[in-house]
Amino acid sequence: MSGRTARRRVLKISLDDTAGERSRADSRADLLAAEEPLGIRVDGEALTMTMRTPGDDIDLAAGFLVGEAIVTSADDIKEIKLCDGASCRHDHHGGHDEVGNLAEVTLARGRSVSTGHAHRSFMTTSACGICGKTSIDDICVLPRAPLADDTATFGVKTIAAFPGRLRAAQKVFASTGGLHAAALFSRDGDLVAVREDVGRHNAVDKLVGHALLNGLLPLSGHALLVSGRASFELVQKAVLAGIPLLAAVSAPSSLAADLADEAGLTLVGFLRGESMNVYTHDHRVSIEV
Amino acid sequence: MSGRTARRRVLKISLDDTAGERSRADSRADLLAAEEPLGIRVDGEALTMTMRTPGDDIDLAAGFLVGEAIVTSADDIKEIKLCDGASCRHDHHGGHDEVGNLAEVTLARGRSVSTGHAHRSFMTTSACGICGKTSIDDICVLPRAPLADDTATFGVKTIAAFPGRLRAAQKVFASTGGLHAAALFSRDGDLVAVREDVGRHNAVDKLVGHALLNGLLPLSGHALLVSGRASFELVQKAVLAGIPLLAAVSAPSSLAADLADEAGLTLVGFLRGESMNVYTHDHRVSIEV
Repeated sequence: MSGRTARRRVLKISLDDTAGERSRADSRADLLAAEEPLGIRVDGEALTMTMRTPGDDIDLAAGFLVGEAIVTSADDIKEIKLCDGASCRHDHHGGHDEVGNLAEVTLARGRSVSTGHAHRSFMTTSACGICGKTSIDDICVLPRAPLADDTATFGVKTIAAFPGRLRAAQKVFASTGGLHAAALFSRDGDLVAVREDVGRHNAVDKLVGHALLNGLLPLSGHALLVSGRASFELVQKAVLAGIPLLAAVSAPSSLAADLADEAGLTLVGFLRGESMNVYTHDHRVSIEV
Repeated sequence: MSGRTARRRVLKISLDDTAGERSRADSRADLLAAEEPLGIRVDGEALTMTMRTPGDDIDLAAGFLVGEAIVTSADDIKEIKLCDGASCRHDHHGGHDEVGNLAEVTLARGRSVSTGHAHRSFMTTSACGICGKTSIDDICVLPRAPLADDTATFGVKTIAAFPGRLRAAQKVFASTGGLHAAALFSRDGDLVAVREDVGRHNAVDKLVGHALLNGLLPLSGHALLVSGRASFELVQKAVLAGIPLLAAVSAPSSLAADLADEAGLTLVGFLRGESMNVYTHDHRVSIEV
């Protein structure tokens, strides 16, 4: 896990109210979640910069491109190199934490940022605000109900077990308390993959990129769990990855629920202990026990 | 609070493990935190789009410009209008939730996005990733230790009381569970202002923009509390607003601690109950009780 955590000095203070004594303060070393910038360039042009926890950076770049509707399969990408100022590496399975903070993407012939970007700009960028329109129809040009044909169902007990399985797999969170996580589950509740990051969007991008580069997109019949809240953007990423069920430990936003409804995604929120809220397309949640 | 919440239908499911009974599922109405896009245009050019909870949108636009180092005082801004496709309004105190999702900023003579943007691009954008450099010196051109001269100190009991005061003031969170919050406190622990948003950066921008437009910047001698984690970007926003102490309920990242150290900011994390961690510049935390 080199590079994913960093040691810093911390002054730990505990108040002691019970006896009116002075507070205790101890200086010690503490592990923090690492945060560093990753630049993503596509065909030589800077596309974005994200503050992320180093690791799985090629997956992150690939997943980001899925979420921007720039690519839909591994064939759309010719190569992704991870670079620093001096050199680049192709290997994306381990050992690249030291390599650098720049992902250089070369798209396959016939693909370009602009083909996808026109799409994206309608969904999430300034076009929304500029026209002052706020309905889903105006800011999202996803095909109508793209997930409607996914007939997967998930048992409530299977879904209820997701957070426990995620927590058990969260290695860095356990040591730092500082990472968001995203996990992919099969219909039977098996944990397929988990990713952690200081940015919750990055954790999802890393998962989706991993799936893309391994030829697993679209992720029909899978469920995605996120450790925090469900925003419009996370719903969009799930839909573009072909995932029919998104579950969040915390609350969804209004726009997340609206987009999920439009796109045919089953959205579960407040997934805690033995209860959950199903906001959209509850036909995929089987309440038989 | 019109516009800050939205009612949606939800299926509430509770598992009953105790008796092997069927799960209970009830359909009812639920309040969600509203999320809508806000476009920010400066001098006629689109600058950014953020997904935010409607309300205090002119403050949000103003605070965003502070965090990008584009403006440092209210005098740098000629006007901010909130617009929809058809009309604009100047009023930023209440009642503008219905007005639209576009903030049109006109900078004062002599100010431009590019003057600030060259600065910004070194701090948070693709320049970081492109050169592959990762140290604070390389990605941040804030003046060295800009807060070093702020001699404010805060008692540990004062700091420990911040989260309770914030929670008591969080109106929308109480009804939706879906909002991040940021609060500004005086040295004596008085709550100066609180803002809530689906995006934690937006909550801080709304606070800082409010302060800017009321002539309160720099916020010397104040403390900022955020409900979640402390990222590099939140530290940067605090520093650019002149706030000497940033406290977070959850963990900071490594880069947040590093930037706080460089900038002379006191960074407190894991501020819960009667304990806290002080990561940097602990001379501002007085442990006398």
